Amino acid sequence: MNPIAILTDFGTRDWYVASMKGVLLKIAPTSPIVDISHQIEAQNICQGNFMLSQCYKEYPLGTVFLGVIDPGVGTARSAIAIHSEGYTFVGPDNGLFSFLWSNDSLASVEIRTITNLLFTKESPSHTFHGRDIFAPAAAHLAAGQSFEKVGPLLTNPAELHIEAPDYQSESVKAQVNFIDHFGNIITNIKKKAWEKHYSGARAVIYKKQSIPLLNTYGEVPYRSLIAYFGSGDYLEIAINNRNAAHELKLYPGEKIKLRPFYK
Amino acid sequence: MNPIAILTDFGTRDWYVASMKGVLLKIAPTSPIVDISHQIEAQNICQGNFMLSQCYKEYPLGTVFLGVIDPGVGTARSAIAIHSEGYTFVGPDNGLFSFLWSNDSLASVEIRTITNLLFTKESPSHTFHGRDIFAPAAAHLAAGQSFEKVGPLLTNPAELHIEAPDYQSESVKAQVNFIDHFGNIITNIKKKAWEKHYSGARAVIYKKQSIPLLNTYGEVPYRSLIAYFGSGDYLEIAINNRNAAHELKLYPGEKIKLRPFYK
Amino acid sequence: MNPIAILTDFGTRDWYVASMKGVLLKIAPTSPIVDISHQIEAQNICQGNFMLSQCYKEYPLGTVFLGVIDPGVGTARSAIAIHSEGYTFVGPDNGLFSFLWSNDSLASVEIRTITNLLFTKESPSHTFHGRDIFAPAAAHLAAGQSFEKVGPLLTNPAELHIEAPDYQSESVKAQVNFIDHFGNIITNIKKKAWEKHYSGARAVIYKKQSIPLLNTYGEVPYRSLIAYFGSGDYLEIAINNRNAAHELKLYPGEKIKLRPFYK
Repeated sequence: MNPIAILTDFGTRDWYVASMKGVLLKIAPTSPIVDISHQIEAQNICQGNFMLSQCYKEYPLGTVFLGVIDPGVGTARSAIAIHSEGYTFVGPDNGLFSFLWSNDSLASVEIRTITNLLFTKESPSHTFHGRDIFAPAAAHLAAGQSFEKVGPLLTNPAELHIEAPDYQSESVKAQVNFIDHFGNIITNIKKKAWEKHYSGARAVIYKKQSIPLLNTYGEVPYRSLIAYFGSGDYLEIAINNRNAAHELKLYPGEKIKLRPFYK
Repeated sequence: MNPIAILTDFGTRDWYVASMKGVLLKIAPTSPIVDISHQIEAQNICQGNFMLSQCYKEYPLGTVFLGVIDPGVGTARSAIAIHSEGYTFVGPDNGLFSFLWSNDSLASVEIRTITNLLFTKESPSHTFHGRDIFAPAAAHLAAGQSFEKVGPLLTNPAELHIEAPDYQSESVKAQVNFIDHFGNIITNIKKKAWEKHYSGARAVIYKKQSIPLLNTYGEVPYRSLIAYFGSGDYLEIAINNRNAAHELKLYPGEKIKLRPFYK
Repeated sequence: MNPIAILTDFGTRDWYVASMKGVLLKIAPTSPIVDISHQIEAQNICQGNFMLSQCYKEYPLGTVFLGVIDPGVGTARSAIAIHSEGYTFVGPDNGLFSFLWSNDSLASVEIRTITNLLFTKESPSHTFHGRDIFAPAAAHLAAGQSFEKVGPLLTNPAELHIEAPDYQSESVKAQVNFIDHFGNIITNIKKKAWEKHYSGARAVIYKKQSIPLLNTYGEVPYRSLIAYFGSGDYLEIAINNRNAAHELKLYPGEKIKLRPFYK
């Protein structure tokens, strides 16, 4: 009864997610089923990649992550299953799971192409592999089927190009990774890297505004800007009780230049 | 521990679905509870009917479908439970489940009016039968209570008028059944019927545009139109990586004329 | 395997709720997890308070309610757990659960500050106590850990100021408590109080419109106004098959004056 956690760009209005859950219940009836999100922007593999990377470690070992953001459904791209750190990931080979490895090292993961027909639906449709290939494979793995039986090893998985921040002595050229539901701006600057380059900084300067670098929203007055390292250890910029992304007019993917301020 | 799958037009913001789930957990504590959708357009019985028809067969036998799209709540319309093909359906008698029978034949279904007070809440409210009648009945049935005890047989259930495509030699007058989250346009043309009438057609002509009839999105360039038989075996029209409904300005329920093209 | 029911203002797009569910599955793997709503308006403690009050009694005894609407996260406000009527509530001490007591009497509830580090994550983040404090505490309590061990008793919990209707002989000054997904207007007028003051009234007059006081939508023609006591025993105003809040231009929190009409 390993849990199955689902991430898609299917939205929650249609029956697509429900079809997948029916398949899961047929094959793995006692596995708890959890939605991570179905509101990934259509076909936005990067966003799905980031979101999965932010939460999978909270789950119990053995959890199977079923990720279906799949613009190439029905084409030559492979269906894959991945073992990593005690977790299993199932979905298309398009970079959705590439946060699991880094620096071109695949030493810590085992990736297999799903070719064993016992793991998938007979005569799968061309446009809904979530229902016909990924969900059955995920359910069989959650139910205890052997990972090795899925299919042959894959050694050259698809990658996403994810840009790293460019740290210079006076400033860092970074990027907005994500805007959350509250309008908090999550950058791609990791706490460790920031502290290595700008140890002792007490504020962040963005477009001539000095934003105090503190711990949490309530440390600044209502409607005031605050910078902090968030729950995923990225540098975030927020406004206490307001939507920072709206007020600063920032969007996911946007480049931003930030300067440390030490006074 | 039969699963219970819920479809409503309640939305997911309010506490209505949560109230129903509390009732389900009280009566059938070990039944997995799954959401099909709560974003059916308010009072749109046709949309709910179509969505249920598209996914129920993915579920394990024994699953109880709790469907609450109920503009007539508290009036004379009956509450019903249906047995069909090993599944159970619970909801108002307003046509929501009429996809289960066809051609005026009810031979394959058993429909009962829910009158046994042991299956419902004492003194149900007038406006929330989802919580007070349908959820308790669904939960008792999922928990193994006998279907026959629900109440007397019903032989004249409410029907929906659903128009069939009009196939002529040169063209078919059809209808948009559904626009999905990606903007894919799902018509009411079934694969078998199309192939019977227009065997060998390699494209579909809509308003002077020839749309290639292929298998999946990735077979045409980005932003190009494609027709294909989707995962529910209906003819669909999409644009690779774009929202076809927006670009073609088509809405659910709209009539469309399509011509086969054989070259 | 006590159920855990979650209410937040996190929305359903991001991974925040999914992170909490991972934590729950780690600690209480057999507890059913149910979403009440994640679409509470950002930081709107009153709305969350009202929604929880409307549905918690539908749940089985032993259910743990995990409520995270927490503008003060990381500040001096306490994390609390509450026992009341056989249910458990876990969340910030900001009034979210104050519907559980009334008239300044705390006799029926036991409130404890969550201070025992065995109930929370080691080194919790400053901005996501939902994941690091409330979810683990809720899961440990659902899994059967002793409530007394959570931490010391709290006797002065935070309160919300909730205005009561002002009943006069000719009219009542009331307030819109909630607008639901259908646009139904839920006031703060309870059935018992109304009937005590205006026994025998057959209609409600709002801004010169006489709205018949009946039981359910279908008792008036399509697009007509109706007043009724809803499934939560509050006076509601709706339009059969239409959105009353849009048409009457009413918003949550708005003051309204209603007069009984007896003819």
